[in-house]
Amino acid sequence: MESGGGVVDHLADERSKAQFDVDEMKVVWAGSRHDFELSDRISRLVASDPAFRKDNRVMMSRKELFKNTLRKAAYAWKRIIELRLTEEEANKLRFYVDEPAFTDLHWGMFVPAIKGQGTDEQQQKWLPLAHRMQIIGCYAQTELGHGSNVQGLETTATFDPQTDEFVIHSPTLTSSKWWPGGLGKVSTHAVVYARLITDGQEHGVHGFIVQLRSLDDHMPLPGITIGDIGMKFGNGAYNTMDNGVLRFDNVRIPRDQMLMRVLQVTKEGKCVQSNVPRQLIYGTMVYVRQTIVADASRALSRAVCIATRYSAVRRQFGSQNGLETQLFWLLVLFQVIDYKTQQSRLFPLIASAYAFRFVGEWLKWLYTDVTQRLQANDFSTLPEAHACTAGLKSLTTSVTADAIEECRKLCGGHGYLCSSGLPELFAVYVPACTYEGDNVVLLLQVARFLMKTVAQLPSGKKPVGTTAYLGRVEHLMQYRCGVQNAEDWLNPSVILEVFEARAARMCVNRAQKLGSFPNPEEGFAELSAFLAEAAVAHCQLIVVSKFIEKLQQDIPGGEGVKQQLRNLCNIYALNLINRHLGDFLSTGAISAKQASLANDQLRSLFSQVRPNAIALVDAFNYTDHYLGSILGCYDGNVYPKLYEEAWKDPLNDSVVPDGYQEYIRPMLKQQLRNARL
Amino acid sequence: MESGGGVVDHLADERSKAQFDVDEMKVVWAGSRHDFELSDRISRLVASDPAFRKDNRVMMSRKELFKNTLRKAAYAWKRIIELRLTEEEANKLRFYVDEPAFTDLHWGMFVPAIKGQGTDEQQQKWLPLAHRMQIIGCYAQTELGHGSNVQGLETTATFDPQTDEFVIHSPTLTSSKWWPGGLGKVSTHAVVYARLITDGQEHGVHGFIVQLRSLDDHMPLPGITIGDIGMKFGNGAYNTMDNGVLRFDNVRIPRDQMLMRVLQVTKEGKCVQSNVPRQLIYGTMVYVRQTIVADASRALSRAVCIATRYSAVRRQFGSQNGLETQLFWLLVLFQVIDYKTQQSRLFPLIASAYAFRFVGEWLKWLYTDVTQRLQANDFSTLPEAHACTAGLKSLTTSVTADAIEECRKLCGGHGYLCSSGLPELFAVYVPACTYEGDNVVLLLQVARFLMKTVAQLPSGKKPVGTTAYLGRVEHLMQYRCGVQNAEDWLNPSVILEVFEARAARMCVNRAQKLGSFPNPEEGFAELSAFLAEAAVAHCQLIVVSKFIEKLQQDIPGGEGVKQQLRNLCNIYALNLINRHLGDFLSTGAISAKQASLANDQLRSLFSQVRPNAIALVDAFNYTDHYLGSILGCYDGNVYPKLYEEAWKDPLNDSVVPDGYQEYIRPMLKQQLRNARL
Repeated sequence: MESGGGVVDHLADERSKAQFDVDEMKVVWAGSRHDFELSDRISRLVASDPAFRKDNRVMMSRKELFKNTLRKAAYAWKRIIELRLTEEEANKLRFYVDEPAFTDLHWGMFVPAIKGQGTDEQQQKWLPLAHRMQIIGCYAQTELGHGSNVQGLETTATFDPQTDEFVIHSPTLTSSKWWPGGLGKVSTHAVVYARLITDGQEHGVHGFIVQLRSLDDHMPLPGITIGDIGMKFGNGAYNTMDNGVLRFDNVRIPRDQMLMRVLQVTKEGKCVQSNVPRQLIYGTMVYVRQTIVADASRALSRAVCIATRYSAVRRQFGSQNGLETQLFWLLVLFQVIDYKTQQSRLFPLIASAYAFRFVGEWLKWLYTDVTQRLQANDFSTLPEAHACTAGLKSLTTSVTADAIEECRKLCGGHGYLCSSGLPELFAVYVPACTYEGDNVVLLLQVARFLMKTVAQLPSGKKPVGTTAYLGRVEHLMQYRCGVQNAEDWLNPSVILEVFEARAARMCVNRAQKLGSFPNPEEGFAELSAFLAEAAVAHCQLIVVSKFIEKLQQDIPGGEGVKQQLRNLCNIYALNLINRHLGDFLSTGAISAKQASLANDQLRSLFSQVRPNAIALVDAFNYTDHYLGSILGCYDGNVYPKLYEEAWKDPLNDSVVPDGYQEYIRPMLKQQLRNARL
Repeated sequence: MESGGGVVDHLADERSKAQFDVDEMKVVWAGSRHDFELSDRISRLVASDPAFRKDNRVMMSRKELFKNTLRKAAYAWKRIIELRLTEEEANKLRFYVDEPAFTDLHWGMFVPAIKGQGTDEQQQKWLPLAHRMQIIGCYAQTELGHGSNVQGLETTATFDPQTDEFVIHSPTLTSSKWWPGGLGKVSTHAVVYARLITDGQEHGVHGFIVQLRSLDDHMPLPGITIGDIGMKFGNGAYNTMDNGVLRFDNVRIPRDQMLMRVLQVTKEGKCVQSNVPRQLIYGTMVYVRQTIVADASRALSRAVCIATRYSAVRRQFGSQNGLETQLFWLLVLFQVIDYKTQQSRLFPLIASAYAFRFVGEWLKWLYTDVTQRLQANDFSTLPEAHACTAGLKSLTTSVTADAIEECRKLCGGHGYLCSSGLPELFAVYVPACTYEGDNVVLLLQVARFLMKTVAQLPSGKKPVGTTAYLGRVEHLMQYRCGVQNAEDWLNPSVILEVFEARAARMCVNRAQKLGSFPNPEEGFAELSAFLAEAAVAHCQLIVVSKFIEKLQQDIPGGEGVKQQLRNLCNIYALNLINRHLGDFLSTGAISAKQASLANDQLRSLFSQVRPNAIALVDAFNYTDHYLGSILGCYDGNVYPKLYEEAWKDPLNDSVVPDGYQEYIRPMLKQQLRNARL
């Protein structure tokens, strides 16, 4: 257990067991050799720079924490300039700094909003300022009383033709902007979403560039009240971000600060639609959700890397029944990763990390495809692409949030320590289930699209993209799964058809049930929970099918790498059958006997993955800095590091704690009665 | 939205809708009129005393937080003495202070350990000191390398007959005591678990009373190294507790500080078993787990109270498809609680809270029963009682942990704010899944017991208690569920038999599969995940059956109260059928058609619960202080309170944040190059 002077690797044995080339798998995981090298180089750059250390942030007070984030952001920007990093490299650097900050919103929301919704002149004016960070912007949409539901926004932007200005106003308490990151303490500007009113008429919700703070002394401009909305879930985590509250008291901005790419307001107050298609906004949505799915695979892989490594480090006495406690010294210490209960929880999560990685890669392609079609004024695939990304966002973020917590539990008691990294990872990740569309609301959007698709089948309308299988619904309703022994479950086309049959039958079944309601909207409301289940089935099918497609492509690393991915793909699919058995059985997609065979096959796959488990998570190529977990450290030298880390807690600054004289001593000495408390 | 001067109750309408007497339900929830009055009186006492305020703790640094906990504990003790509270009242007061502290371990583990494992003389010596808090004790069992697995402990207690002392020693880094609450900074004494060695021989793990710190100046005694193990999950939460690390360097204690109720060591170093039955320890386990189940229902009910009230406050625009955005002002604002997706997630949790409350009440009875039998030297029901409590501990804590997080999600984005109370509730609750037996390990113990029970059936051995249904296994294997329409699912005997059939068939099926392995231990290891599923089915049956039994008893409050409980019982059961449909279908306990009818019935039950939802959570009788949630406040006046709370964050102490001059301004002014960062 010595941490000694030399290089230790407590997991070296595990690494030598791998049956594939981990370096090749790193490239597969990264997406390409270019992506691998970029990530590798930048992550090491960040990890080796003490200015970016992050192990101390869970002990900081809110103020210290926030100031530290400001320091890191400024330092990162300085390094980006000094090293003349490209935009791609700069993005990676910010990513590996791994600390939510106002820059996320500036680069990820403010700049894209101006690019997407600003006219050419507006872009020419504002983008250079933003690109040089001479202004810092955020994205002010949600309000205290209204979440992602844009329809509910109450902030108004009333055009005043007398002065050629908009008057931005918060008419109620609930109309206060609430949640925007970077707003509370940092941003000088915001894209503010408000109801456009001209000549007493409402014209929907639009974006306006509003300066919030003076560029001289950072004080809020007249009529503007801003603050931070307070502590959020977890230690460190999102408390590095100044999510803000913002109220407007009749704040005036020039007319040309309304983002007018789609709708223009003339100086007479007339609204004029431009010839830019409104559907463009969906392209942006596809883009944003694609990045969220990519983030899901990263967060999940990170948690699973920690849990897998620690499961190989941690040992427990086998509870050999029958042997009595007197013999304990003779009992073998088992690695926890050798327990089937551990494997059955852990390995499907490794598989899910890879599955989400590949479906995220495919979404990147989808975005390119959608963009090209939009440019050619082809909107035919948009609804399907929109539903598909909504569903995948919902599925992957929900699974990932739960999986991080599951990984924490898989680490036993020590997972509860901040030094395990898992509490912070959970706390920082869970908002993904809510932002950019609440996950349940998104599933209902998918369900609505599926019901529409099914309803249009009789008219001969061919479903496209990920819903194409619904075009074979007659075949799928009659399909009988032919699995007769466990090995049959290794056939990808069997898996695919079983998932298609399940999803198709659930859709048809829901559509029929909907049909029994006189009013379809009422039926939809009444059956919504039931409909969401069909949407989940559809989304799981997408993930499974994209994983299978990936396996049909050329993959570097030869058969070794491919075999691992095949195992993971099968684990992903068979585990879902196990978890959602009710769906598969109630639709008759498989029989109880076949389900039992799937389970047998799953256990056998776990045994095949076992020797490769550590290498499979090594392939994520995460530095110890990025992982931020003692339990997950590369060398597996967990216990000495945990012990060392404990002493850094501020409570250990003194042997006798502050408060002893006032509170503990009087208690022990029975002198409380006279104490002033 | 005014918070005004007068008393507002935004939920008054909701409360007037209730179809039962909420005051009577409060008594049912509390268990008796006495319990209700006690809880009501003490919770108000705590809530009305500003010394116990807790809304500020999420913003405190670790040191401030800890000192504040010391203050509260001392103050609480002072009040307990001043008000001459009974033990029952004092316990309630500590409970409503609602902040993990060293006193939990002192009263909950240290004192009971001495009571349970100390001889009469030892009790006479140590208990008065502990009862007066002239010493403060903790419970030092787990070690850095060894969790709840007592077999793995490495700390040694070697008897030295020369001096009539034990030498307590930590031979390795991993043998450091790790996790004990109250150890890090406060305790003067500990019950330390160590391997007893006399005359070079091992005699198993035993408890020893060890003084850790000087009673004069609180410094650790010679040979003792103690510290806090550092930050844990969440804001506030368990960071009020000084979970500690402890190493012994050959620390000597007198022989009479080994707890010798069961095993005595003579001054010659001989081990002598007393005539006290070793099974006594199981009685304690049943007791501790019973309290954990009671805690689960409290934590769950608290989360569900918050989510239910906020779901009635929060409104969203109905997404009426077809109506276009231009019409939004005309759209009705719906209460979120009226959405079926919300109901289908929320109402089963209300039902679970009640279900766990009643099964917890029954466990209290079971403990009394077990104790009486132990006193009469009747150990026949112990294994069953032990398995049953292990299983219920596992089931209720796992469900509760997930449910708190689900409640957080049900509150949308605002659930992520600490002021919602849910992040802290989650973080403070989740250790329950790990302590007193990891939940998965416990399920395997249950599974082992079930497999043994099934194996002994042919020999004619009658299963007792909660496994009695396995005595009717032949009938249950042939059982066919007779449900033909949705209302049939309201019959409690139908529900009971369906759950029995499912559990029995899963047990038999697993037993058969185990039989196909040449080595049963190997089979058990290989099938463990599969076996755990049978254990879950068994435990769910226990909860359902105890709920049904409760409904057969006299319940105060008449038909109104009873009807609500009947609805909740049905929701609890039917929701489980829906969630674990794979089990029910694969065992043939029900058909797919019957499952669909169960779903229809469930939706209809949701509509019946809807008008009663707020009253059902009011019945928990939680003060706003105890709930600790703005979203869950009794009067529903959420938004003004959220807004007010935000300004209290330390970041809002100044309008321009600390760090502006060093980091933000140089960035905006393009002067970073020269900045010293």
